[in-house]
Amino acid sequence: MNNAMTRTPQSVRLGKTQVRSTPDGQISAYDALAALGLEGSPERLQEIVEQHGLEPRLHNFGKGREPVLGYGDFVTLSFALETPEARRWRGKARDLLRRYLEGDIQLAAEVAERSPSPEHRRWLSARLESVEARKRFMSTVARHGGEGSIYREVSSLSNRSVLQMDSGEFRRKRRVKNTRDGMSAAELLRLSYLETATAQAIEAKGVRGNEQILRLHKQKAEVERRLWEEEPDPAS
Amino acid sequence: MNNAMTRTPQSVRLGKTQVRSTPDGQISAYDALAALGLEGSPERLQEIVEQHGLEPRLHNFGKGREPVLGYGDFVTLSFALETPEARRWRGKARDLLRRYLEGDIQLAAEVAERSPSPEHRRWLSARLESVEARKRFMSTVARHGGEGSIYREVSSLSNRSVLQMDSGEFRRKRRVKNTRDGMSAAELLRLSYLETATAQAIEAKGVRGNEQILRLHKQKAEVERRLWEEEPDPAS
Repeated sequence: MNNAMTRTPQSVRLGKTQVRSTPDGQISAYDALAALGLEGSPERLQEIVEQHGLEPRLHNFGKGREPVLGYGDFVTLSFALETPEARRWRGKARDLLRRYLEGDIQLAAEVAERSPSPEHRRWLSARLESVEARKRFMSTVARHGGEGSIYREVSSLSNRSVLQMDSGEFRRKRRVKNTRDGMSAAELLRLSYLETATAQAIEAKGVRGNEQILRLHKQKAEVERRLWEEEPDPAS
Repeated sequence: MNNAMTRTPQSVRLGKTQVRSTPDGQISAYDALAALGLEGSPERLQEIVEQHGLEPRLHNFGKGREPVLGYGDFVTLSFALETPEARRWRGKARDLLRRYLEGDIQLAAEVAERSPSPEHRRWLSARLESVEARKRFMSTVARHGGEGSIYREVSSLSNRSVLQMDSGEFRRKRRVKNTRDGMSAAELLRLSYLETATAQAIEAKGVRGNEQILRLHKQKAEVERRLWEEEPDPAS
């Protein structure tokens, strides 16, 4: 607490307003009102809070505890208020929906760069790479006479080898809809590595057909797992 | 044209509806109406088009030319109609605004994976890496006694070296607001490479202070540019 009082609080830009933010991603309620074109006063806040059923928490930015809101609250207000600023935020939401549907890669970059954590950005790179590695793997499988169930079989083998469970169980355990959303950067990296290694071996050995491909992938997965096993190789 | 008639058209999922899409990212107007909970008939479309001032183009998905809309039109209709599906899309837009403001890295991944082009995903990786490389470079500069204007000077030197113009001119030429948005994956890679090389040299040589740092960065930039020059080294 004392330490926090000597530091300049973090802040984020919302439109033209600089808004103080907490390390866990909440924002000053007064600053949020200002960003929505309202007076950032205790009276105005009280009114807004009651009207929209918000429950601000308290945070000390350095001058005593004051109310903070989540971005969900900020969005609720953007969609409820009739200030020009609120209308601009609604326009932003429309624009985001369009860019999301278009798969606008610059939007992906913008969102990633808003993320406060370099770890998260590293995770995104690992995830993108894992998707590309999977695609390259699948196209190698196709060029080498793989067909039908093989695509599902090799993917599920990769997942089970790295995650030590099937993807359904994994998604339940980590509470995600999409398997990759629940994977750590290290797990994503292992997935890319394994599938790249098998793809290369398929090319190098010139194997063909479902059975040979699956056998080779099993071998590669075993070797890859050994790298991560806690017990050292007795020969070493 | 004839070729297109034999191929299955591309399609994207919009909510629960599968919607046919063109290679340049337009969607079947009839399918779009269905995704918005309306009857996808020529009569209904005519009505909607007039009411909302849309101007559908025509595309042949394989059974003759039919009207297509952009995602901008789809969003316009989502915000204008009162069907449950349209309301769900507005809810999605609110959700996107919240996740955008939070810098939700899983949103960045989702958008990137909606992008139809692997080139674009590669660009995103290069861009994220360039941001991290810049940060590492700046923190090396800070640890070696750099202060004040040096941060601007080294960044602007990197940009000028790779882009062969200053960033203001570059942004005007490529019509972007953010310099990195206008850079190719190769240019982003060069930027990361150059700044990583200078950072390493600063550490290795133990240089200190603005003047020495800037001199070293100039040397590195010259060497890096030589790699890309068209005239071969006369000695080679």
